[in-house]
Amino acid sequence: MNWIQPLEQWIEEADRVLVVSHIHPDGDAISSTLAMGTMLQAMGKQVVMVNESPLPKKFAFLPGADEVKQVHEVSETFERVVALDCADRARMGACCELIAPGASVVNIDHHATNDSFGTMNIVQPQAAATAEILYDWIDQSRVGWNEKLATHIYTGLLTDTGGFRYSNTSPKVLRQAAKLVEMGISFHQIADQVLETVTLPQLRLLKAALGTLQQTDDGLVAWMKLAKADIANASHDDLDGIVNYARNILGVDVGILFREEQPQTVKVSLRSREIVDVGRVAKQFGGGGHARAAGCTVQGTIAEAEASVLAEIRSQLRSEAR
Amino acid sequence: MNWIQPLEQWIEEADRVLVVSHIHPDGDAISSTLAMGTMLQAMGKQVVMVNESPLPKKFAFLPGADEVKQVHEVSETFERVVALDCADRARMGACCELIAPGASVVNIDHHATNDSFGTMNIVQPQAAATAEILYDWIDQSRVGWNEKLATHIYTGLLTDTGGFRYSNTSPKVLRQAAKLVEMGISFHQIADQVLETVTLPQLRLLKAALGTLQQTDDGLVAWMKLAKADIANASHDDLDGIVNYARNILGVDVGILFREEQPQTVKVSLRSREIVDVGRVAKQFGGGGHARAAGCTVQGTIAEAEASVLAEIRSQLRSEAR
Repeated sequence: MNWIQPLEQWIEEADRVLVVSHIHPDGDAISSTLAMGTMLQAMGKQVVMVNESPLPKKFAFLPGADEVKQVHEVSETFERVVALDCADRARMGACCELIAPGASVVNIDHHATNDSFGTMNIVQPQAAATAEILYDWIDQSRVGWNEKLATHIYTGLLTDTGGFRYSNTSPKVLRQAAKLVEMGISFHQIADQVLETVTLPQLRLLKAALGTLQQTDDGLVAWMKLAKADIANASHDDLDGIVNYARNILGVDVGILFREEQPQTVKVSLRSREIVDVGRVAKQFGGGGHARAAGCTVQGTIAEAEASVLAEIRSQLRSEAR
Repeated sequence: MNWIQPLEQWIEEADRVLVVSHIHPDGDAISSTLAMGTMLQAMGKQVVMVNESPLPKKFAFLPGADEVKQVHEVSETFERVVALDCADRARMGACCELIAPGASVVNIDHHATNDSFGTMNIVQPQAAATAEILYDWIDQSRVGWNEKLATHIYTGLLTDTGGFRYSNTSPKVLRQAAKLVEMGISFHQIADQVLETVTLPQLRLLKAALGTLQQTDDGLVAWMKLAKADIANASHDDLDGIVNYARNILGVDVGILFREEQPQTVKVSLRSREIVDVGRVAKQFGGGGHARAAGCTVQGTIAEAEASVLAEIRSQLRSEAR
């Protein structure tokens, strides 16, 4: 692979490197950060790993996770930066302030929307995860595999493919996973920690949401609501995934979660299986996303948001039926 | 593999074959039944696929699922039988009555406890699923792969490894999965149907259970309760998995679900991560299982069962801490 030699050359020339990923880091962002940090350290470089946000607790078990700093803990700026899993510069959030003017930035990412913001751009949209790209490098590097790196890369593959369930799970990803399992990593514990673990606040929110579950007569749309009082103190991570309980009901095509962010502001999360393009629904309300997962913000009460979003979905279902 | 030739020879000699698996069939049981039925049909044999229990609705999408009969729909007996995923004859339940006295039975299974009840026994405890054994056969047979068979086998691998998360997920299983994905199966839809889909009764039970969630002060044990009124009309499948919500809480080692089967009879499901051997706990109450998953039935009220099971777990935790 002809991007490996320039990457290693760039590292060779570096002394101190900032390794950064995107805000609200997911498993691939964290794992790529840790794997890149581990590789650079093994190559004798000084490394600072940073993220704008604190790491979600469920990733605390990853080897090296305690070395990832939050942005306010770093005061210097860097001439050499590796940005991982970021489609554009803004995805790094406040970490951008740690990048010196004119710094050399390596941009390693798998998002098709990547705008090539780096000095060197290693962008592979066919990869399921940034960890998949790093796998190819580690596999050919003189550093080679160790359990720590294998754990990082497996975690990135696992999370960005939804536990090898999303349609981006290529035969290549499964073969990489097979190799990593063969190396003796604790893959069962990784999946348990990363995919199965829930927090008490998550279960409290789930219970509140389930208490409001409604479904249209034809069974195609199911929705739940969370009032402002329910989500007080809830984090981004706590709310993540709740909408799927509506979408996953047998026979449902569209699942929706309405949550009251402010008295007249309702955030709407939309998920669908195959009929309704929820990206189009969200767009009608000034939101965005894609056909299977989208979101928007509607001004008004929850009841008003419910009425208007359901009306839009019904109209799409009617035009689909034609 | 030297079991394939005798198996194909046995099939060659057969005219009509009964294909059967275990009661309360899971994904591997159903998928193995369908794959074996498909293979036998392709080899020109008359086939009756049967199960004691109706198939759970979430497996209805599998090609050929509507051809699997319930035991009361079959009136004849068979001289040639293939039993799949059954550790012993009793696992077939009432389907045993369809086996003629002196019939020739091929027993294909991956349970280490298999008692070799067949005339021919193809038992491979190192296999993660019966589907893994059938994969090896199909891969070498003259019938060869088609999308239907690939869908069956993938479903069996997926379900018996808990979505490639359990510790039985070998590199071999992942490589088989890679090959099946390469064949173009709708693996994303399979995972969605089989692993993500929930029913309204399941969500109702989950909500009721979450309303009773309690945790010990040290956070190590979490439990939930379902009263008789909650579980009226609930099926085996509806209750499946609810106990995991307690076990999966961050920091929890033991998760428990107490459910009132009768006014003085409480079923207790136990799951643990790594400290407490819940098999030993269940055994104290005349139940069974293994270290990470077990169950027992306690006579008394839910409050009494709660007190005695929690006391037993606390005593195990104390002896572990020593």
